[in-house]
Amino acid sequence: MKKSDPPKRICVDMDEVMADSITEHLARYNRDYHDNITKDDLRGKWIWDVVAIDRHPRLEEYLRSDDFFAVLDVMPDAQRVLGRLQQHYEVFIASAAMEVPTSFNAKYRWLARHFPSIPATHIVFCGDKSILRADYLIDDNPRQLRRFVGEGILYDAPHNIAVKGFRRVCNWLEIEEFFLDKK
Amino acid sequence: MKKSDPPKRICVDMDEVMADSITEHLARYNRDYHDNITKDDLRGKWIWDVVAIDRHPRLEEYLRSDDFFAVLDVMPDAQRVLGRLQQHYEVFIASAAMEVPTSFNAKYRWLARHFPSIPATHIVFCGDKSILRADYLIDDNPRQLRRFVGEGILYDAPHNIAVKGFRRVCNWLEIEEFFLDKK
Repeated sequence: MKKSDPPKRICVDMDEVMADSITEHLARYNRDYHDNITKDDLRGKWIWDVVAIDRHPRLEEYLRSDDFFAVLDVMPDAQRVLGRLQQHYEVFIASAAMEVPTSFNAKYRWLARHFPSIPATHIVFCGDKSILRADYLIDDNPRQLRRFVGEGILYDAPHNIAVKGFRRVCNWLEIEEFFLDKK
Repeated sequence: MKKSDPPKRICVDMDEVMADSITEHLARYNRDYHDNITKDDLRGKWIWDVVAIDRHPRLEEYLRSDDFFAVLDVMPDAQRVLGRLQQHYEVFIASAAMEVPTSFNAKYRWLARHFPSIPATHIVFCGDKSILRADYLIDDNPRQLRRFVGEGILYDAPHNIAVKGFRRVCNWLEIEEFFLDKK
């Protein structure tokens, strides 16, 4: 990058990239339904493929509850690496929050609490990520990456292990390596 | 447009383009502070330029209150023309909702109520509209239009009467004329 070039722009998904939502989702399900599903059981599948939603209606309710997002852990190294990215790139947070409209406020508060360096101007709640004008999108959802115009980076998650065709990162250290080690 | 081309994409702002927020904002201010400010008084100005915010603190509170957005009128002809636009273009709604984070739910409900033909996938709450990948943005805020990459269409509002450099539309009939009369 020449000094005069504007910084490249990276969009970062929230669920399963910045926030560990699967762990909490499984914990609530296992607690309420006395089951013992693990992340390993979700390899190559979404949770909906493993657990019949019609017999476990709370599975969807968890995502809509006010306190679900509030308690999610930050993915390891995400805060430090995202802070470094902001020094060299323009970073936007892009969540498909329209899928769960009741999550808006909780997601906004979670970001303000755990990532205070991100200005409100650089947060996007959307549905279809083809609307994002950016150079990169880091996302665990291959459907969103396929629609995105730019380079899609697939963040490793149990449901996407069989997905090909994108650069895959398994954690934030690999994000750091890809975007920053050449800086 | 050739039959095989994908439809062009239009982003449409909410406040002052789809929803008449100034009328309600002025009504609440005039009621609470026993004043009589009209839209004409706002020519070339934002309401903050006319009324000192430090002496009228409710002016900001109105925008944050749960019921503010819920009661806003739809701009004349917006529903019919937007429905026609959807037949020829891909239409996204793009609101700078991050400026008033407490407005997310009210804005979402307002859209569902008045514009049920817009799928959740095509709603975007953002801050900086340079993040939008679209061919057109219809917005009353010249600051957003200047950052947008694509053709900005300025929707007429009291505060922007002196703004030059964009195609100006004064109502939804002019939007219809610009986008659809050649169809």
